Amino acid sequence: MDKPYFRLTSKPVLENPIFVQGLPGVGNVGKIAANLFLKFCGAKTFAELYSPSFPDYVSVNSKGVCRLPRYEFYAAPMEKSDFIIMTGDTQPSFDDVVAHYQLCGEILDFVDKFGCNFIVTIGGVPIIEEKTQVYLAATSLRLAMEFMEKGAVIYSKGRIMGATGLMLGLAKERNLEGVCLLGATTGFKADRGAGFSVFKFLMKALGNEVKEGL
Amino acid sequence: MDKPYFRLTSKPVLENPIFVQGLPGVGNVGKIAANLFLKFCGAKTFAELYSPSFPDYVSVNSKGVCRLPRYEFYAAPMEKSDFIIMTGDTQPSFDDVVAHYQLCGEILDFVDKFGCNFIVTIGGVPIIEEKTQVYLAATSLRLAMEFMEKGAVIYSKGRIMGATGLMLGLAKERNLEGVCLLGATTGFKADRGAGFSVFKFLMKALGNEVKEGL
Amino acid sequence: MDKPYFRLTSKPVLENPIFVQGLPGVGNVGKIAANLFLKFCGAKTFAELYSPSFPDYVSVNSKGVCRLPRYEFYAAPMEKSDFIIMTGDTQPSFDDVVAHYQLCGEILDFVDKFGCNFIVTIGGVPIIEEKTQVYLAATSLRLAMEFMEKGAVIYSKGRIMGATGLMLGLAKERNLEGVCLLGATTGFKADRGAGFSVFKFLMKALGNEVKEGL
Amino acid sequence: MDKPYFRLTSKPVLENPIFVQGLPGVGNVGKIAANLFLKFCGAKTFAELYSPSFPDYVSVNSKGVCRLPRYEFYAAPMEKSDFIIMTGDTQPSFDDVVAHYQLCGEILDFVDKFGCNFIVTIGGVPIIEEKTQVYLAATSLRLAMEFMEKGAVIYSKGRIMGATGLMLGLAKERNLEGVCLLGATTGFKADRGAGFSVFKFLMKALGNEVKEGL
Repeated sequence: MDKPYFRLTSKPVLENPIFVQGLPGVGNVGKIAANLFLKFCGAKTFAELYSPSFPDYVSVNSKGVCRLPRYEFYAAPMEKSDFIIMTGDTQPSFDDVVAHYQLCGEILDFVDKFGCNFIVTIGGVPIIEEKTQVYLAATSLRLAMEFMEKGAVIYSKGRIMGATGLMLGLAKERNLEGVCLLGATTGFKADRGAGFSVFKFLMKALGNEVKEGL
Repeated sequence: MDKPYFRLTSKPVLENPIFVQGLPGVGNVGKIAANLFLKFCGAKTFAELYSPSFPDYVSVNSKGVCRLPRYEFYAAPMEKSDFIIMTGDTQPSFDDVVAHYQLCGEILDFVDKFGCNFIVTIGGVPIIEEKTQVYLAATSLRLAMEFMEKGAVIYSKGRIMGATGLMLGLAKERNLEGVCLLGATTGFKADRGAGFSVFKFLMKALGNEVKEGL
Repeated sequence: MDKPYFRLTSKPVLENPIFVQGLPGVGNVGKIAANLFLKFCGAKTFAELYSPSFPDYVSVNSKGVCRLPRYEFYAAPMEKSDFIIMTGDTQPSFDDVVAHYQLCGEILDFVDKFGCNFIVTIGGVPIIEEKTQVYLAATSLRLAMEFMEKGAVIYSKGRIMGATGLMLGLAKERNLEGVCLLGATTGFKADRGAGFSVFKFLMKALGNEVKEGL
Repeated sequence: MDKPYFRLTSKPVLENPIFVQGLPGVGNVGKIAANLFLKFCGAKTFAELYSPSFPDYVSVNSKGVCRLPRYEFYAAPMEKSDFIIMTGDTQPSFDDVVAHYQLCGEILDFVDKFGCNFIVTIGGVPIIEEKTQVYLAATSLRLAMEFMEKGAVIYSKGRIMGATGLMLGLAKERNLEGVCLLGATTGFKADRGAGFSVFKFLMKALGNEVKEGL
């Protein structure tokens, strides 16, 4: 394998889907929120992405079956809008920044083929005091205002690291619109509460109500 | 040298050989087991692999003669099945993950030409209590069950790092079958006992009996 | 994105402009001096440079709007000579030296199209005793002498790291002329005084008088 | 600059020259020995090699004039045999092993054009007790024996790191012959004594007598 490749396992029918990305990172907030979203929507996997810039290991499940690290794409045709949800095992190794730009670019190419023109990236942001809060950055001032009115707080600390930030920046470069939602988390351990907060905010912002008991 | 290359020193006649890989790593288990295998089979070297992603040094033997780090391929035509055994001096540098994916891919291309469709990778796994144990991961549930019945323990700790894991994952991506055998080892020093355990298990699993005195 | 690209936002009319570069680095001297220069000249931005070898994050402004890290080019048509001033958010990651050589090369290609044949790079140099001093290196002995007579001190400590040095070295390789001006700074915090010293020296050297109150 | 390039400053006439390489490294032995060789032979520079895998800085001389890091090639037509001597400011960054293999390969291509078929690489080897000793590795047993008889000690510690080892290994891969001479050094500071020992040994081995007073 010498470049990233997508393996399509089925061909979903989606209309101008919103692309939602939640990868491992600070407090694992992105991945947790994406998984909650998957469960809530009854989303179905339709593609996998493999890349030589992912770490050189295999994951082994509880039954001893291995597989390469990958990103997974799920399709969720819903009433108000369709979704492509991406989550994964990892992010490209920190050493290879160029590979990260390329990989994010290829993902944007991929979702573009499905007519996607809005993206949501989810991550975590470390804070000191315990506080349930969803922070926000956007590709435009109008969008930042719109999501702020829905209850998120402007993130103005300067930088959003890794795929959560990079994907939004690259989307903007292509004249796509999108927002980044960051769940406040005190720990570096997996923070299910922060993941749930972001998920709940996103659902509400997109017009769906989520019950606490999920 | 700007890409990996194979130097064939002879052309072995092999029928659907099983590919066995044992490289330096945790407790050096993989390399030790591969070397025991070589000795047991009377295997003969037939190819060398050089790569610019190997470290930038030369090895010098006791007589002062140098050579580049490399992987070596040995052929062992045996009664029950033929083997290609690969061992080596090193693994690609940790910094260059993409190179590692590429190199493993080229090795799979290479052994594919000999009709190989089953692979065994051997490595070590660090454990705290002293225990002779062979852990197992496989490309399919059926294979995991089959080797478990032969006495290995399912490895369900999540990840197998480096070439030992990566090669198995890449093989699976090509619809090859295979297993990874990990010898439990308490130390990071070369662990001959763990290497022997894996070798013995592999021989037995493949239908050969090994006497303790080897 | 898999290679650097320039986005032109307007097309300035410039005659044999001098290229001035001030990037983040020791004491942030380069960036501070470049920003003072921008303000002084009333320079107008006309191009942006994006690169996959920049770090994988986005910057977020106080209103929550994100953008990728980039270099920015400003045009300043002035009485005695025209200027292209470049500043930016970052430098390429230290891991990827080849990318840094390439990026600087592409910048020299870019400014060459505007007829630029003299470059000034600005940086900081850490010193122990507090002293306002501008150090100097040049592409030729004649230039080193000329700027020394204007009040700078020959930098003879051996090496100038990062873009500040590399750009000058690459310019020399193309038979361009130029100087590097280093503001002495005791701290690694942003040193506005050192930035101002270099800016003031540069203005004077180029024949402009700067009032202290800027 | 996106790949290494050679700049020829003159075209020397050489017959089957011996290539001698001495670069910065342990105790700076290689570079010191190469410089002594240059002085002894009255060698004249005829080429420079620049590479984007060299570090991203410029060197500044005592008069403030900068230049990129580079390797320099010197020609020395002598009575018993002609020489190409290479020394330099640096080695490629440790991170980029592939670049190092490529660079050494290009140097071998370059000297091959002059009819070179024997190479000598010079380096240092750290030892604990103070002892003047020249260690030796070679591309063949015959050569190892030949240089051992001339007074060098077989280096059998396993590995020779960096360009000193890599160049010899790559030369062997091309069926060139050569030796590596390592000066024993106790410190990591520049060790002029060790450099002189290797130089003296090399001169003697090649049939020239060197007086102590050089």
